[in-house]
Amino acid sequence: MKRYEALAGEIETSIRSGVLQSGDRLPSVRSLCGSRGISASTVFQAYYLLEARGLVRARERSGYFVASEVRRMPPEPEQASQPPDASIAVDVSARVFDVLASSNARSVVPLGSAFPSPLLFPLQRLGQAMASAAKALDPWSTVDDLTPGHAALRRQIALRYLAQGMAVPTDDIIITNGALEALNLCLSAVTRPGDAVLVESPAFYAALQALERLGLQAIEVPTHPREGMDLGALEAAIQRHRPKACWLMSNFQNPLGSLMSEAKKRELVALITRYQLPLIEDDVYGELYLGAQRPLPAKAFDREGLVLHCASFSKCLAPGWRIGWTVAGRFSQAVARHKLTTTLGANAPAQAALAEYLERGGFDKHLRRLRQFLASAQAPFAEAVGHYFPPGTRATRPEGGYFLWVELPPECDALAIHAQARARGISVAPGPIFSASHGFRHCLRLNYGHGWDGRIEGALETLGQLAHGAR
Amino acid sequence: MKRYEALAGEIETSIRSGVLQSGDRLPSVRSLCGSRGISASTVFQAYYLLEARGLVRARERSGYFVASEVRRMPPEPEQASQPPDASIAVDVSARVFDVLASSNARSVVPLGSAFPSPLLFPLQRLGQAMASAAKALDPWSTVDDLTPGHAALRRQIALRYLAQGMAVPTDDIIITNGALEALNLCLSAVTRPGDAVLVESPAFYAALQALERLGLQAIEVPTHPREGMDLGALEAAIQRHRPKACWLMSNFQNPLGSLMSEAKKRELVALITRYQLPLIEDDVYGELYLGAQRPLPAKAFDREGLVLHCASFSKCLAPGWRIGWTVAGRFSQAVARHKLTTTLGANAPAQAALAEYLERGGFDKHLRRLRQFLASAQAPFAEAVGHYFPPGTRATRPEGGYFLWVELPPECDALAIHAQARARGISVAPGPIFSASHGFRHCLRLNYGHGWDGRIEGALETLGQLAHGAR
Repeated sequence: MKRYEALAGEIETSIRSGVLQSGDRLPSVRSLCGSRGISASTVFQAYYLLEARGLVRARERSGYFVASEVRRMPPEPEQASQPPDASIAVDVSARVFDVLASSNARSVVPLGSAFPSPLLFPLQRLGQAMASAAKALDPWSTVDDLTPGHAALRRQIALRYLAQGMAVPTDDIIITNGALEALNLCLSAVTRPGDAVLVESPAFYAALQALERLGLQAIEVPTHPREGMDLGALEAAIQRHRPKACWLMSNFQNPLGSLMSEAKKRELVALITRYQLPLIEDDVYGELYLGAQRPLPAKAFDREGLVLHCASFSKCLAPGWRIGWTVAGRFSQAVARHKLTTTLGANAPAQAALAEYLERGGFDKHLRRLRQFLASAQAPFAEAVGHYFPPGTRATRPEGGYFLWVELPPECDALAIHAQARARGISVAPGPIFSASHGFRHCLRLNYGHGWDGRIEGALETLGQLAHGAR
Repeated sequence: MKRYEALAGEIETSIRSGVLQSGDRLPSVRSLCGSRGISASTVFQAYYLLEARGLVRARERSGYFVASEVRRMPPEPEQASQPPDASIAVDVSARVFDVLASSNARSVVPLGSAFPSPLLFPLQRLGQAMASAAKALDPWSTVDDLTPGHAALRRQIALRYLAQGMAVPTDDIIITNGALEALNLCLSAVTRPGDAVLVESPAFYAALQALERLGLQAIEVPTHPREGMDLGALEAAIQRHRPKACWLMSNFQNPLGSLMSEAKKRELVALITRYQLPLIEDDVYGELYLGAQRPLPAKAFDREGLVLHCASFSKCLAPGWRIGWTVAGRFSQAVARHKLTTTLGANAPAQAALAEYLERGGFDKHLRRLRQFLASAQAPFAEAVGHYFPPGTRATRPEGGYFLWVELPPECDALAIHAQARARGISVAPGPIFSASHGFRHCLRLNYGHGWDGRIEGALETLGQLAHGAR
């Protein structure tokens, strides 16, 4: 247990036992630093965590207070999923499109959206960087910046890897049109039609759509809502189905929010290395952690170039810019060539602008604010789920990202709730779109990345009524 | 024959017969307008055409003069290609990458490049539009502008279709990451692995690479260097091979520069309609015409939504911005869904900036300058090919675009010349990369879109020596 987790646990105990009561002011950061001999950032991390758990509230300029009404969080799901042990021809894409149609419209309460609020991003400062980069654009960059991409941006990305202790050469970084393109290119590079690919259960629907588009079979692997893919089941599936790749998210999986521990990531990489199985790692939520530091990706433990690490700026800095990247190890050339024959490159001014933004600094400050916003939004959202949804409902408490995975009582039909909610101007992402075997019929993925306000709470109340009615 | 062509023919006769001699000044535009009762633009078109043929030269502020040394143009190729009548598994991509490696490096004379000089584009004005669009970006546009794309940009594109007499609803336009993505998405939408697709002979190598990537068979159709694909051969191939699509460029085909007449385009669309065969039309060079007006695409004659028209701003306005589009007729939804599952969208600020640039006006003025530059570069380039290359060499005189297709004497090996040229810092695009059946071994595609200067002439002299040596 990390130091900040220990401190948070200690304070939580004090609250639960009544030593600290509703409205009590928590010790100031400075005083705790002094009395405990710990750093201010440790105290802040503990307070953020307590805030995410709904136990404390920040009040502007006056510090942290025990929440006035400590609502009960819904219990967490405890069981790993149990998908069929089979290689499945994927046929989900049309349903995904039908379900998600207009889920991004502004008039809809976007609980089914895949995006956090666009108001959370430094679009003004990015706009300035874009303005300056576009005006100063070297005409030859329009050719030079085609795949693998703008050299200065790739260097900035390499520096961020380095800050995490990962030595990634600039030359290994390929800029893509968002992580989604990176993931598709990587999948194309390591499979042929008819091959089988291992995915989580539940899995990000776009992964399933990519498999379907490429004529690949899906093998769904049992996945724990807190700890991620079950490695024993993974090994059994490798032995049984001879897949050509595994696609997963080790950090804040979509939709579960699960986070693999570092030890588990090491074990995962050892496992895929033993079987020489390419691992496509989707790490788009890695920067959105609640904890003390960014969790490493599995790629950090890859010594043989078998992990194809994919990430982007879309979820953490520049939505709509469509700038992502991949570090594809021994598959780099194949990935670059797939990109050259499909989209050729990414927007040159945007690449230069992001490089300029990253060089100037300010990204980490923005990320701190963004993480704090998401942390403070999670608790009231989860509490409201606990309050409004039927007894027996479980919900994850993810340590990052902005999705809550909600398991309703088994008799609730998420697709029916989705349809009823849509008619009431609320979008949700129902469980079955995350599964090639059409499982998770009683589950919802809810987006808490649009902050906490009356409109959101009202939508959750409505969803709760629908869920009650569906029983 | 158009009025400007008649005028140009008349003046050409006067030059060839010696009535007009080297250094003579041509009549001023104003005087010809008065004496002939024709418009200034007709006179300008005639003079541009004469300039493209190398017969006259413009001198700044003093008008047009008969060229001091009217070099002989090489004869044009006269025969349509004769590819094997077979469905071929495509295996060209690795060779294409090997051949084109570093052909875009700044230190290389870029005769093998696919791009015109990046100095020809209004990057400064585009930069201003980008600056203003990026600063004013509506945060929600980062979501709203995902596929099918930014509404104002799509409207501007619809207006340009309208100016050509084509009624294309804004809603039918899907913004893509350049035309290359549009073409790939369209191909994905209308085929499945193993299907056969008709292509020109020679064909744009990226079309062949797309076929290879998607596991498709190529059927090469005889294509005339001036008039484009042979429609009789096309129909025979449809009947014999039952293809699932045809991919071609009706305007300034890459690499031939061929241009289908309007009558032929009508006939083409009638033909594919009779067989209900989807036609993917790559129209990226349509704006780069030498003639009096932009040639219509085959799409203009499509009444059943069978033509998937693909174009972009990359070759005519904003290289490196990676903004193209498609109007995919009855395949629109399939194309949009392929895009949503692969790259999601195009860069939002760039879309807004292009919309703003197009709204402000100035695009047509830029295009006029660009066309004039390319027209004036073609003639000296073609003359130099006639001068330096071995007897028996033929070269196209394309009516648009910026490629010359050169047929060397049959004993010349274009791949060998390519390798020798590369060692001397000159890139060329050898014929075999344009053919699934590895034909065109004695052909080269040369790019004259970097203007005319001593460096280019020196490179052509070197190429001529290599070709002489290769005989």
